[in-house]
Order: sequence, then structure tokens, then C-alpha cells
Amino acid sequence: MIIIAENFNSSIPETKQAMADRNAAWLIEKAANIADSGANYIDINAGTFLEHEAETLLYVAELIQPTGLPLAIDSPDHKVIEYILRKLHPKQALLNSITLESTRFNKLVPLAQEYDTKLIALLMDGSSMPESVEQRLEIADRMINSLEEKNIDQDRIFLDPMIKPLATDDQAGREAYETIRLIRQKYPDVHITCGLSNISFGLPARKYLNRAFLIQSMAMGLDSAILNPLDEELMKLLHAGESLSGCDEFCCDYLAHFRPKKHD
Amino acid sequence: MIIIAENFNSSIPETKQAMADRNAAWLIEKAANIADSGANYIDINAGTFLEHEAETLLYVAELIQPTGLPLAIDSPDHKVIEYILRKLHPKQALLNSITLESTRFNKLVPLAQEYDTKLIALLMDGSSMPESVEQRLEIADRMINSLEEKNIDQDRIFLDPMIKPLATDDQAGREAYETIRLIRQKYPDVHITCGLSNISFGLPARKYLNRAFLIQSMAMGLDSAILNPLDEELMKLLHAGESLSGCDEFCCDYLAHFRPKKHD
Repeated sequence: MIIIAENFNSSIPETKQAMADRNAAWLIEKAANIADSGANYIDINAGTFLEHEAETLLYVAELIQPTGLPLAIDSPDHKVIEYILRKLHPKQALLNSITLESTRFNKLVPLAQEYDTKLIALLMDGSSMPESVEQRLEIADRMINSLEEKNIDQDRIFLDPMIKPLATDDQAGREAYETIRLIRQKYPDVHITCGLSNISFGLPARKYLNRAFLIQSMAMGLDSAILNPLDEELMKLLHAGESLSGCDEFCCDYLAHFRPKKHD
Repeated sequence: MIIIAENFNSSIPETKQAMADRNAAWLIEKAANIADSGANYIDINAGTFLEHEAETLLYVAELIQPTGLPLAIDSPDHKVIEYILRKLHPKQALLNSITLESTRFNKLVPLAQEYDTKLIALLMDGSSMPESVEQRLEIADRMINSLEEKNIDQDRIFLDPMIKPLATDDQAGREAYETIRLIRQKYPDVHITCGLSNISFGLPARKYLNRAFLIQSMAMGLDSAILNPLDEELMKLLHAGESLSGCDEFCCDYLAHFRPKKHD
């Protein structure tokens, strides 16, 4: 699994506070813990800072870059993503995100080429959520074709199937699984990622839905997720689910994760 | 999910002790807790009592029958299963289990007809474990055809795909999922069940593997499991996994399970 840590998002109150206070000690310690957790990227998002978004994101990015974890640069404003790239030239970054909407696509894809980054691509055509498995697959086809035309190989693409909340559609989980299974079958090299929290929006005991959704999705072919890698229960299930999905030769990763201490 | 409680199995030391001591208070309280947990069957197994198996099983069955939960009568010796049926005439029982091996099949299937029970059918031909997805599917076809010839409908059959330990084959989980998915596709009315503990045999932190295996299997079409319904964390994940698998209209079961208390 390619784990994208969700922790540096200003929609999380304590993160927003630390960013606002320029609390370097807190931010550096959090980043170090994330680096120790086995995460592969730190997603950084300062969207709630509005007109101070760019400067806040640059501050955070510069501060945590020494952890060595690649950054997922996450902004609703493509100009903010460009600003961070031009200022910082980050290595192996992930741009979060493009859709098929042309302005954003045409701005961010050349930057992905120039800075040799990867891209999260939401399965959205315009601004509305896709409605069916078929629609998601059709958008996935167009997205992958459009990116390959721009010389972005499949292993640089992280498709996000844009999951609906289960509270608004009791088939939302099943629809996600079928989408993931069919994309994985057709495109073995593309990455499939998603955030965990959307599925459980509006329901109680959300952490159980989020955990179950993650590991059921992994069995279908999800190979990346945006999640909190400091949630130890979640990470234990993730390592178990990964071994069960046949992605862990001789269970080496599982054994490495569980051998040091006693859990049962 | 059709939950078959695993707790009354004499391979569990404290259960064995209570059975040996004829500790009615302990056994009745445990059975009442299981009945409250949402389980659908109590599996009763006194196999470790050897020559005292039949009398021990009869004692346990009579004692816990007033809970009202149907019994899964579980013995390696078909004569013991027959003994319990003839003595107790249990309602809506589940016989655990048959294979394609002819003696057992020919003894237990007529009893299932006579006492109107359901049947757990292991996907085994002779005495060896199946080796591949294809072999399991071929045995499933023969099993279902053989039972239908005896007028056992598909909704009375609980197929157990006989999962190998992940420690002996790192593709065992993936193989289980593919088997479950293909059986579900071909036979929508048959039940598919399995015990949880085999998959994790020989590995550390088994509860995480067992939990992840259960809910990943559910996404593939597993609709029953032999498990400990008193494990609250497992049951929370199970209810989450069931809603995500599209088997919970308007998330009603999920809400009923999680609304009474606060979990987050």
C-alpha cells in the first residue's frame, strides 16, 4: 500500500492551529512520527487559510521537507500548487489533484512533467460526482488516455474513484468495490487511491466504517489510501489486509510489522 | 450475515473445563450472552471428549436449547450427530458437516431431510484439502448437484471453501476471495461460510488477520461465518463491513447496532 498521510490538513482543528501559530516544534514532531509510521507521502493542505493559503503551505512544506517523505501538494487552487513547486522544487511530489476539467488539467499536467511528479486524478468530468460504476469507468478511460497523450505513464497516475457517503446511498460501498475491481482488472499498473472519511459521512462510529472500507477496497485492488497512519488499529488491519490480498510475499511485511511487540 | 457462534467448542480450554465440570451456570450464562450478541446459531462441539463426546454434547445441547438459538451440531463422528438429532429433535438445526466422502454424505443427508436441517458442506472430495480455486469450484458444483438430487435446496447449504493458512501459502487469502466471489456469482442462493482462525494459523497478531479476512471475504460474497460474537471489535467491523457490502438497506442494521451508545 502507498500510504498518503492525511494529518497535515488545515481542516483538522489542531493542525490548523499549529499551522496558524507557526508551531514548528509540533509540526516537526508530527511529521517525524508520520515518517516513522510507514507512510509514503505527507499530504499538505492549507485550504482553510484562504488568502494566506500559499504562504502557509510553503511554510509547512519547507519545515517538513527534511523528514525525507515526499509531499502530496493538495490545493483547490492550481496556482497554489504551482507556487509551491516553483519555490521548493520538491522531489518525487504528488500533485493533489486534477480532474478532466480543462483549466486545471492544462495547468497541472505540464507542471507534473516539468517537475517529474505523480498526479492524483479524481474521476470527475465537470464539477459533479459520478453517478454509476459505468460512468466512473468511462471517465477513467478518458483520464488515462488523456494523460498518456501527455506522456504521463500509468504508474504516475493515482485514480480516486470519488466515493459517495453510504448515508446517502446504501449501495455506495458496493459501487466503490465494483469500480475498483474493474479498473484494477483493466489497468494493472495504475494506482487507485481514496480518502477514507467520505464513505462514513453522516453515520455514527465512523472509524469502523472507515477501517472496513479500507480493507475491503484493498481486496478489490486499491493500492493506496489517504489516511491517518498514526491510527495504530487502522494500520494493523491494513497490514493484515495487505497480506491477505496476496501483495506480501512470504508475509514479510506482516511479520516485520507485528514481530517486535506482542499484540495478542 | 448468518453468525455461527464458535464458543461452545471443547477445543477452547475454558469451555472444555465447563463442559467437563457440567458447570451449568457458566454454560447457560455464556449461551445467553451469545443469544444477546446477534448470533444466529450456536455451534456445539465436544470432540475432545473422545468416548464421552456424545453424552457431553447431549448434556450441552439440552442445557442451552432454552436460549432459543438454533444449534449447529458439530462432530467428526456422524453417529454423534445422529445421536443428538434422535434424542433431542432440535428445531432448525445445522449439521456440521458433510464432505463428498460417501459414508458421511450418505448418513447425514437423509438425517438432514428427516429433521429438516441445514448442512455445512466442506469443499473437500476425499480427506485432502483442495489445492486451487478451480478445484474448489469443481467440488462446489458436484456438492450442490448431489444435494439438489436429494432435494436439499441451495438455501439449506452452507459451503465452506476450506481456507489454507496464509503462513503456508501467501496467496491463500486471494485464493479464498476468488473462490467466494465466483461461487457467489454462480449460486446466488447458496450460503458461504467459514471459520476465521485457519487463515491466521502460525502467524502473530492473529486477531487482526481474522478480522481483516472476515470483512474482505464479506465483500466477495461470504454471508456466514463461524466466529466469536462476544468479540465486540470484531462485531463492530462486521456490521460496518456488512453495510459497505450493500446488504443493509438504508444502513438500518448498522444504525441499530451503533446508535445506543457512543463509540467514537
